[in-house]
Amino acid sequence: MTALIDRPTLPSPASVLVCRNCLAEYPLGPQHACLECWGPLEIGYDPAALARVTTADVEAGPHSLWRYAGLLPVGQDPATRVDSGTGMTPLIRADRLAEELGFTAPVWVKDDSANPTHSFKDRVVSVAITAARELGFTRIACASTGNLANSVAAHAARIGMPSIVFVPADLEPAKITQTAIYGGTLVGIEGSYDDVNRLCSELGETDEFEDTGFVNVNVRPYYAEGSKTLGYEVAEQLGWRLPEQYVAPMASGSMLTKIHKAFKELTGAGLVAETPWTVFGAQSAGCSPIATAFSAGVDDVVPVRPTGIAKSLNIGNPADGPYALDAVRTTGGAMASVDDDEIREGIRLLARTTGVFAETAGGVTVAVLKKLVEQGAIDTTKETVVYNTGDGLKTVDAVSDGARPTAVIKPTLKGMREAGLL
Amino acid sequence: MTALIDRPTLPSPASVLVCRNCLAEYPLGPQHACLECWGPLEIGYDPAALARVTTADVEAGPHSLWRYAGLLPVGQDPATRVDSGTGMTPLIRADRLAEELGFTAPVWVKDDSANPTHSFKDRVVSVAITAARELGFTRIACASTGNLANSVAAHAARIGMPSIVFVPADLEPAKITQTAIYGGTLVGIEGSYDDVNRLCSELGETDEFEDTGFVNVNVRPYYAEGSKTLGYEVAEQLGWRLPEQYVAPMASGSMLTKIHKAFKELTGAGLVAETPWTVFGAQSAGCSPIATAFSAGVDDVVPVRPTGIAKSLNIGNPADGPYALDAVRTTGGAMASVDDDEIREGIRLLARTTGVFAETAGGVTVAVLKKLVEQGAIDTTKETVVYNTGDGLKTVDAVSDGARPTAVIKPTLKGMREAGLL
Ligand SMILES: Cc1ncc(COP(=O)(O)O)c(C=O)c1O
Ligand SMILES: Cc1ncc(COP(=O)(O)O)c(C=O)c1O
Ligand SMILES: [Zn+2]
Ligand SMILES: [Zn+2]
Repeated sequence: MTALIDRPTLPSPASVLVCRNCLAEYPLGPQHACLECWGPLEIGYDPAALARVTTADVEAGPHSLWRYAGLLPVGQDPATRVDSGTGMTPLIRADRLAEELGFTAPVWVKDDSANPTHSFKDRVVSVAITAARELGFTRIACASTGNLANSVAAHAARIGMPSIVFVPADLEPAKITQTAIYGGTLVGIEGSYDDVNRLCSELGETDEFEDTGFVNVNVRPYYAEGSKTLGYEVAEQLGWRLPEQYVAPMASGSMLTKIHKAFKELTGAGLVAETPWTVFGAQSAGCSPIATAFSAGVDDVVPVRPTGIAKSLNIGNPADGPYALDAVRTTGGAMASVDDDEIREGIRLLARTTGVFAETAGGVTVAVLKKLVEQGAIDTTKETVVYNTGDGLKTVDAVSDGARPTAVIKPTLKGMREAGLL
Repeated sequence: MTALIDRPTLPSPASVLVCRNCLAEYPLGPQHACLECWGPLEIGYDPAALARVTTADVEAGPHSLWRYAGLLPVGQDPATRVDSGTGMTPLIRADRLAEELGFTAPVWVKDDSANPTHSFKDRVVSVAITAARELGFTRIACASTGNLANSVAAHAARIGMPSIVFVPADLEPAKITQTAIYGGTLVGIEGSYDDVNRLCSELGETDEFEDTGFVNVNVRPYYAEGSKTLGYEVAEQLGWRLPEQYVAPMASGSMLTKIHKAFKELTGAGLVAETPWTVFGAQSAGCSPIATAFSAGVDDVVPVRPTGIAKSLNIGNPADGPYALDAVRTTGGAMASVDDDEIREGIRLLARTTGVFAETAGGVTVAVLKKLVEQGAIDTTKETVVYNTGDGLKTVDAVSDGARPTAVIKPTLKGMREAGLL
């Protein structure tokens, strides 16, 4: 598998793969680790190519993340894109949430549960599967905590590509069903996500998987770039300017890091004014290796064995932990973690103030927002964006005990009266 | 409650309430039944006002159903709109589905699971709650088979309006949780939807509910218009032309009827060329009063006691049954019903060919599409739109038995080999 990307109509702004650790460079292709130091590789861009993109170009594009093709490594030729309608999700002005938390500045919820399979993972998969097809892979695979599984299986079904998806066997039932329903191969693993991920790395070395693109292993440099669109869209939806603060959940730490990268690219390319922003990271108490390193003031992220209801964030050995720490520290932000009860309360708080029903990961983010406000770490006089990255329908059991009917009655006025409703 | 709509910036094209039975006219307001014959009232428009709307106006509007405000009774002044980002859901070219069913013409899936609460009900609620607020109501209510409950509770939470939602107590657990989570009042009724609906009509007459807009009772004429946007959007997404055939699910029969109305309005207003279209209606075998009347060739829709897994379509006494029959018959279409196994198979067929995970109502529609093709009632040489109106995550249990992992293994290459996957 060494095919390089060919035949884009417009040139891709991507020029190279760069090691994030030692800065060694490699040609674009299906490689994810540095041969010098085993550091993770990232897409490097030609700054001049990025600077040629205009807001008018973007606005003339489709109403999906592909409007930002000029800032992505693949998909410049519309015919090559896997476009599931992902992206351009609502940025909701959350005045009632802001009021309840004591903000005097606007609070916005970027609601990525509006994506086709109802999580932000549709972004990374749109880019990854487009890249995988261009790179010549004929089967698509992933290791997943659930949402990625849903998205990979759905996108594969859409284009008729075989898929094989690996998940911890104890995932939420809805995420199992929502993956299996698309008809690909779904493998439940008796173990944690980190076990699943290790198995996928091993499989990637086998002959049988030579033609398989693992979206978050050998295609990972492309995959990760999809998350940048969460930053681009917020800037565009705010009228081409950056928010002052954002709060994002962390599993591997990739998404939070890529939003930060997006903001840097937008200012570098002159698409927005260079105004400062501060990054805040959210984890659950059941899996807080990055937030723990932050609190301890250390660079070393010590792996943990995850527990707790925020299963989609349960990555005990987060590959991008150091980069997430860096984004938060260099911008003067903070991290925190919240326990299962706080997560449930976060889900309810968001639902009753904004009408958005988030999965446990969104509960983590909103609960951390609340905690950081209480700690004085978040500035309530600054405009703030909160990323809701998944859908409440995926983790219904986490809150169903506390979300029952007010009353169950006979269909009569008498029934209403006896229940005190009339 | 007799306040009339006032203060729209642009004039509303709506001019009157018309009885669909005897054509008696009434001024616009919170009234839903004809005082002459008790027939249902519908919004009547000034044809000249509709004809002033241009495709350019629409395209310059927001990326939500409010771009069609010029064709709706309320929301002309953007400040009055409740805009949850509903509408402009993907129209997916379903080539793999088309191939499997033997179509030579394009088949499209209009995927309304992409709406904020993941069903088409966000359309009717966006319009209804906007109208309710303008009409002076201070509380919002509904009788629901589940999806409407989700949407009313979410929209009410968004704008901070109290809500009271009535559902059959035996609904799918996800729909109960997704309603209660938003913090309004949720009343479970020991009985069918038809019992719930009757209770709501009675409550509407009480003093305690004088200030309450029941979206599908006293606000119904406004509410129902929201479904027209399912027709407008398809026409716009096809490049301002009509499809030759469409297939839609029926509960009360309102949505199917309003798509037909939308196509008539578009041709009447000169927004699309006047090309013929044929309407097809889908019900489940557990609740097929309209399809049964169709097959029997009669006008009378005989109420039934609903059963089966397509709970969101389980309205035994469908208010708009006669109008749905009329739309199908006058266009030369057909209706059919499918049993629970066919519904499950319809869900799987759509998922594995298009990557769209539909709720049972969508399974009904796809299974009926398949059946009507087999019967020769649908013409496979004609371009066809299939409406998916709800989300698979809302009815997970209906398909979870048949959507399990291919294998559950230890995280080792040996485990892969033993499962025959390597
Ligand atoms: C809903 C949700 N939010 C956030 C994340 C975090 O992603 P990352 O691994 O990029 O930190 C995940 C990862 O699976 C997720 O499922
Ligand atoms: C998912 C879904 N599709 C279709 C319908 C049919 O709606 P109508 O009552 O307008 O026929 C409903 C009604 O609740 C629904 O929930
Ligand atoms: Zn290196
Ligand atoms: Zn009448």
